[in-house]
Amino acid sequence: MMKQRSFCTSLWQCYFEYSTPKILVIRSFKVGTLNRFTQALVIAYIIGYVCVLKKGYQDTDTVLSSVTTKVKGIALTNTSDLGLRIWDVADYVIPPQEENSFFVLTNLIITLNQTQSRCPESNSTGFYCTSDRDCRVGLRDTRGNGVQTGKCVNYSADVKTCEVWAWCPLEMDAEPPVPPMLGDAENFTVLIKNSIRYPKFNFNKRNILPHVNTSYLEHCVFNRITDPDCPIFRLKDMVTEAEEDFQTMAVHGGVMGVQISWECNLDMPSSWCVPKYTFRRLDNKDPVNNVAPGYNFRFAKYYKNGDNQETRTLIKGFGIRFDVMVFGQAGKFNIVPTLVNIGAGLALLGLVTVVCDWIVLTCMTKKNLYMEQKYSYVDDFQLLSSETP
Amino acid sequence: MMKQRSFCTSLWQCYFEYSTPKILVIRSFKVGTLNRFTQALVIAYIIGYVCVLKKGYQDTDTVLSSVTTKVKGIALTNTSDLGLRIWDVADYVIPPQEENSFFVLTNLIITLNQTQSRCPESNSTGFYCTSDRDCRVGLRDTRGNGVQTGKCVNYSADVKTCEVWAWCPLEMDAEPPVPPMLGDAENFTVLIKNSIRYPKFNFNKRNILPHVNTSYLEHCVFNRITDPDCPIFRLKDMVTEAEEDFQTMAVHGGVMGVQISWECNLDMPSSWCVPKYTFRRLDNKDPVNNVAPGYNFRFAKYYKNGDNQETRTLIKGFGIRFDVMVFGQAGKFNIVPTLVNIGAGLALLGLVTVVCDWIVLTCMTKKNLYMEQKYSYVDDFQLLSSETP
Amino acid sequence: MMKQRSFCTSLWQCYFEYSTPKILVIRSFKVGTLNRFTQALVIAYIIGYVCVLKKGYQDTDTVLSSVTTKVKGIALTNTSDLGLRIWDVADYVIPPQEENSFFVLTNLIITLNQTQSRCPESNSTGFYCTSDRDCRVGLRDTRGNGVQTGKCVNYSADVKTCEVWAWCPLEMDAEPPVPPMLGDAENFTVLIKNSIRYPKFNFNKRNILPHVNTSYLEHCVFNRITDPDCPIFRLKDMVTEAEEDFQTMAVHGGVMGVQISWECNLDMPSSWCVPKYTFRRLDNKDPVNNVAPGYNFRFAKYYKNGDNQETRTLIKGFGIRFDVMVFGQAGKFNIVPTLVNIGAGLALLGLVTVVCDWIVLTCMTKKNLYMEQKYSYVDDFQLLSSETP
Repeated sequence: MMKQRSFCTSLWQCYFEYSTPKILVIRSFKVGTLNRFTQALVIAYIIGYVCVLKKGYQDTDTVLSSVTTKVKGIALTNTSDLGLRIWDVADYVIPPQEENSFFVLTNLIITLNQTQSRCPESNSTGFYCTSDRDCRVGLRDTRGNGVQTGKCVNYSADVKTCEVWAWCPLEMDAEPPVPPMLGDAENFTVLIKNSIRYPKFNFNKRNILPHVNTSYLEHCVFNRITDPDCPIFRLKDMVTEAEEDFQTMAVHGGVMGVQISWECNLDMPSSWCVPKYTFRRLDNKDPVNNVAPGYNFRFAKYYKNGDNQETRTLIKGFGIRFDVMVFGQAGKFNIVPTLVNIGAGLALLGLVTVVCDWIVLTCMTKKNLYMEQKYSYVDDFQLLSSETP
Repeated sequence: MMKQRSFCTSLWQCYFEYSTPKILVIRSFKVGTLNRFTQALVIAYIIGYVCVLKKGYQDTDTVLSSVTTKVKGIALTNTSDLGLRIWDVADYVIPPQEENSFFVLTNLIITLNQTQSRCPESNSTGFYCTSDRDCRVGLRDTRGNGVQTGKCVNYSADVKTCEVWAWCPLEMDAEPPVPPMLGDAENFTVLIKNSIRYPKFNFNKRNILPHVNTSYLEHCVFNRITDPDCPIFRLKDMVTEAEEDFQTMAVHGGVMGVQISWECNLDMPSSWCVPKYTFRRLDNKDPVNNVAPGYNFRFAKYYKNGDNQETRTLIKGFGIRFDVMVFGQAGKFNIVPTLVNIGAGLALLGLVTVVCDWIVLTCMTKKNLYMEQKYSYVDDFQLLSSETP
Repeated sequence: MMKQRSFCTSLWQCYFEYSTPKILVIRSFKVGTLNRFTQALVIAYIIGYVCVLKKGYQDTDTVLSSVTTKVKGIALTNTSDLGLRIWDVADYVIPPQEENSFFVLTNLIITLNQTQSRCPESNSTGFYCTSDRDCRVGLRDTRGNGVQTGKCVNYSADVKTCEVWAWCPLEMDAEPPVPPMLGDAENFTVLIKNSIRYPKFNFNKRNILPHVNTSYLEHCVFNRITDPDCPIFRLKDMVTEAEEDFQTMAVHGGVMGVQISWECNLDMPSSWCVPKYTFRRLDNKDPVNNVAPGYNFRFAKYYKNGDNQETRTLIKGFGIRFDVMVFGQAGKFNIVPTLVNIGAGLALLGLVTVVCDWIVLTCMTKKNLYMEQKYSYVDDFQLLSSETP
């Protein structure tokens, strides 16, 4: 019945050969239990972690997103410079449109009626002088506000600074007003429209969910508990969720991250795929080791007066930039990753034999018995040749 | 010749030991065919799917991209407010430059000569009143256009609304004009310059291909059939490819995705690595469950009149934002993924034995014969000890 | 002791069975050395490449980043059109804020006092004419600057072109000035504040490192050797590091990539996780096969004169756009990838047996001896049935 033959006498026979390893079965309570326990561990890992937690049977895709935003609200300021003034969206959103981001002005230092002319350098820059010899014609310093004319002029009654050619009068180098001028911005609302796509699965969805109707959208405001599906956010709520105080943040400005997460299991009904909003402050508010804390930038409005001379209003605008960050991953059943994960799991099951073999052959009392049964030896050592029968 | 010995008498011998499993070869038409057929399946999967389709022998890298855009074209409008007016690129691209995106104004509601003053609230906001008691001084509502002064004034002959301090006159809350004012925008062209880099392979390329010369670029327009390499796109063509109507979309605006795909096999000549353009509408045009459909934003131009009083022209601009999305993956032969994939393939071949064993030992008529040959047993059960010789 | 039995007489016994393959140990200098050498190769690959180089025992995460920038510096120009004029940050950064990018104006072609009116088409557009019949009323051509009125007028003493309704006077279609008007921009500095986050490890860091104090930040400038931790960059230094000449690049503009790389091994002290800055030119400076080389765009400032008529100053601005690109990957020890990599490594060790078997059974002189020991045969061929005992 069993027959030892030379290896594969013909290709034809070789084709119909099936090789399978010879197996030694050890029947033992200890070894068997160890074996089954290790197998159970591996299977639990594969099913529990790989399949259930990591969804290894799914193919995945990352999100493509498009975001548009629309801020609403008005603020009122009353200053000696500007008088009573109303600020609307065209005034405080700068630039008027951006791709994934919007900026809301919350505080400002305004310098009216600047013209190209001569004036004494600001005293904070350190260009003090006693005579014209202390000033260098044409000096352009990054600390300075203009090009020095070489003259030394009175900055105030008792301080003299070098004269500069610049947009004069210079901006007052002061801390921004407290409370912030546009503190009303905390009640502004923003409508965030986000349309996403998982190209691999040809799946599109938007953050305005199908069950949300137009009349609801006209008055709702996002609230994590009562209105979790409303895409209209009050600025103060967003800042508060990030555990910041709006009025404090508004003074120097800052950067807020509006994170929209779209984790979707597309094996489930598509209505289960909903956005999850979180808010986080992105810039560093720690005053230590910081330069220019907060977020601000300068911009100007240009005018021409009757003589065709250009004047401008310089605004150092402090405010909050909201970066809308959309991320997420969708998964859907696919045969290829399923096969790969089953394969990898079975490979891990192979490790069970390695571990059990090691324990059986080194720790068990009957290890010599098992070893004799498991191993056969062929010696090819010349020094051992005498031992061969 | 063959000798049973105790395990590894010395480390020296152990070093020169080579362990190989003992194999049972079953020569059978049925089993052999089953075995070869399963092996062929696995090998076909590895070669066909992993190597050819997924290019498992390649290392991959994702694209780094830089985009600049330049819109060209002029539009003419003739309205009672503005008279005959020409619009050029500095008028309709807002803001004038963005990183991966550009906006073209296609329609607008213009409000001229706004000043900070008092006027009756617009009737669409619902702030109707019969006397001053219906209005609250200082009320700032997100629906409103300004801060209420507490007075009730005539909005029209028979309607009274609360007076507000605002940029007056208020914008007429109306639907945008149909046909769109800048419908001419359909003939605008945009030059999209895209330079990409695959850092891992130190490979750079741009969407202006080497064989395209300057004189061709001066007059060409992208056409999928006749001019597929021209990087100049007519706005209407892009919208039409996304199966939308330009004039309809221009009324309320929208967001278009200009997708540039750079899928490159760098084992092939680099001239085969060319961009592929596709166009898709990104926003939701469905009027159901939608607020503020389309894409619009408000911006203003500020002026000062002779008395140094600030006036502004408010524009509610509707238009199409084109988001240029560059994506892609390059692959190039690398020894490491090749080894990994061959290894994984051989591991899968190991599964063939598992499957065949199961069939041979449960379904074949001679299964007992095979089982006897394949398995040896060592019993360690105390209850079975009597059976041991 | 050893006993051949029918397969798994009861489920109970089956549960306590442990199957382990029977092994043939070949003791031979040649085969043993070959075996150990191949094993050493695989182990060296696993430890050296997978563990040390690729850090296969680590879980990885990609960076989330937020960037803000602040440019400082002033430039002086002296032209016949504008006279002596100073340019500060509100003048040359357009738009005043962007998300991951900033633009610095370096050169410009300015057209003052444009109004909506009639003027002869520019001669570079090719709309030459001899009489009104050569011009078409209402023609809007992408090459042209306005809408033709149908008249033929004198462009200069000896050239006649079609008249257009446009923003007149038209921009002079000329090359940008050399040297660039705002060549002073090379000494501008930019503070780049970058805050990153690895969400999976809850790790935050910013490019202003803890040991950098505020007084140092007030005057430092980045230098790869002396000040590698200073987040303030001189524009010229960035361009020079990318092996470009600032003054040359400033004439036509261009796009620079400021790459911040955050490769972090979070098993090490977090202070070892520092940003690495590199600079690269992103656009194509090669004049061959190029249209509109460099980077420029048109924008306008709008004014109203005494008669309430709108005029504008058109600026064709050339400049350098700096795209801040933040990328990186952090790794931290995690048990799952460690297990997966150990498993994959052991699977590769299984390949050693395949390779050695092949060599032993085909190349060695004693191959028949090994083969006899390794293989047992069961024949199931009908044609061979006579051979079965």
